[in-house]
Amino acid sequence: MANVVVVGSGAVGLFYGARLQRAGHQVVFVARRDLAALQERGLVVESPDGSFRLEHVRAVAHAAEAGPADWVICSLKATALDAGPDLCAPAMGPASRVVVLMNGFGVEEPFVARFGAERVLGAMAFVGVNRGEPGVVHHIAYGRVTVGHVAGDTAAAEAFAGLLASAGIEAVIAPSLRFARWEKLCWNVPFNGLSVAAGGVGTRTILADEALTAVAERAMREVVATANADLAAIGEPHRLDPDVVVERMFAQTRIIADYKTSMLIDYLEGRPLEVEAILGAPLRRAQELGIDTPTIATLYALVRHADRRTLAPAPARP
Amino acid sequence: MANVVVVGSGAVGLFYGARLQRAGHQVVFVARRDLAALQERGLVVESPDGSFRLEHVRAVAHAAEAGPADWVICSLKATALDAGPDLCAPAMGPASRVVVLMNGFGVEEPFVARFGAERVLGAMAFVGVNRGEPGVVHHIAYGRVTVGHVAGDTAAAEAFAGLLASAGIEAVIAPSLRFARWEKLCWNVPFNGLSVAAGGVGTRTILADEALTAVAERAMREVVATANADLAAIGEPHRLDPDVVVERMFAQTRIIADYKTSMLIDYLEGRPLEVEAILGAPLRRAQELGIDTPTIATLYALVRHADRRTLAPAPARP
Repeated sequence: MANVVVVGSGAVGLFYGARLQRAGHQVVFVARRDLAALQERGLVVESPDGSFRLEHVRAVAHAAEAGPADWVICSLKATALDAGPDLCAPAMGPASRVVVLMNGFGVEEPFVARFGAERVLGAMAFVGVNRGEPGVVHHIAYGRVTVGHVAGDTAAAEAFAGLLASAGIEAVIAPSLRFARWEKLCWNVPFNGLSVAAGGVGTRTILADEALTAVAERAMREVVATANADLAAIGEPHRLDPDVVVERMFAQTRIIADYKTSMLIDYLEGRPLEVEAILGAPLRRAQELGIDTPTIATLYALVRHADRRTLAPAPARP
Repeated sequence: MANVVVVGSGAVGLFYGARLQRAGHQVVFVARRDLAALQERGLVVESPDGSFRLEHVRAVAHAAEAGPADWVICSLKATALDAGPDLCAPAMGPASRVVVLMNGFGVEEPFVARFGAERVLGAMAFVGVNRGEPGVVHHIAYGRVTVGHVAGDTAAAEAFAGLLASAGIEAVIAPSLRFARWEKLCWNVPFNGLSVAAGGVGTRTILADEALTAVAERAMREVVATANADLAAIGEPHRLDPDVVVERMFAQTRIIADYKTSMLIDYLEGRPLEVEAILGAPLRRAQELGIDTPTIATLYALVRHADRRTLAPAPARP
């Protein structure tokens, strides 16, 4: 049995933490909004795969109360990325490793700078989960997690994938974490970006409009070009084939119902958008590499503007 | 004294028509919204340059009631472009010429197809005017008109410019109408496009955000590249210098107060947007010429989507 500390008890952190605790692992949730509810009433997961309740969960306000963990799962929103290492550090003992389970490009970097590359893994969740009332998570569908080690330590990636598998979670080892991050961005950049830039639309609206679809494809090809230049620059052998990526990503998107991207949900609920992790960081990497990415730049500017407008304090009412 | 028929009695058509009538020309207004008001109460122009009232104006519902004109000024919104030649034709006698006083690229083409190039001029108004209640026009500032003949007939352009000048309207002869259209698009594409794509913002908001400013500049450079390819393709000697255009357009924009583009005003008032004339037609010309214009394509897709969303019938209310 492993000791796990979940830093960032949003829907994703609560869902995977609950699955691990149900499988017998020791889990501590570092929580904010849900802290009192978790302490008083435990945690409920409502899921088409089988709902369950954990009568008792250990929830704390600060990782210092959690003690060193085998695994620290950092599932903060990427908007809190800069605070991530500080929030995780108190749970990091000499043998601890941190798994950055967040969206975007470059999200492992602050953790590498703080804890050293050998102790940092990255993970991407392909899961539909939403928070309900405090202490309740609604699992809608899926749950697969792709895992990779930032420095390619396959044994470490396998160890964490094994932990997930022990809780019945489908885990995939990425041949290259960097490659896997870029591959996910091929979808996230166009569809998260357009879902907000077009004023708040699901994937069906984008696919039903040939001009928006053309923009999505163009953005995707710009991500592929950036990804391949980045992978070449860091000496990674993997490459993305633009035509294959476009074909597969659009096919995947066409078969699902009208999907609300995570950024769209944040936008509709007035929360901060993961604009820097999903759009800004890839754009800046493209600029460093001299790759021309005007479509990403436009989506970034429009989404960042939407984010600031949403978060600006409303004018005082008389 | 000239006989003038104004087809499209919006703010621009009413303003210039009123100035011409005040100068002693025979003007007939083909009107829709303002028809009864014009017939019953005449026309009022409120202006910092001096307000005035025309007690009697001739306003008709259809150009057939207007008889052949020396000049037919077509000041319809570009969203009604396709209907333009039909609406103007009844006022076109053997010696009549039509002046297409509209926004966008290619707006003269349907008139050339209908009446022949030698009878078609284009004009661009640099004017701030808004409609008030029916029969009232609010002139805010400026009023200069750039005039050109589609086939370069300078005498015809001078004749129309002289008509305007006889009414105290500053008139400039464009050395090339096509060049002048492109030059105006260098501003209209980025600023009209972003004013709507960014959710409804004035020029100050764009200039205060370095990412939006970068998108505006990129769009402007795409317009310049398209313009120069287009001018070369049709054998026009004029070219736009991208750095000069960027420098001058941004300087002009910085000195004015927070400006609402015409597209933004239409957007805020729920009216159809001139998306095809200002964004779609230049984009299609770029595609014909093989010029890569991803920023224009993105703005076009987003503004077209905003236009359709605005115009979609609202769900029935209970």
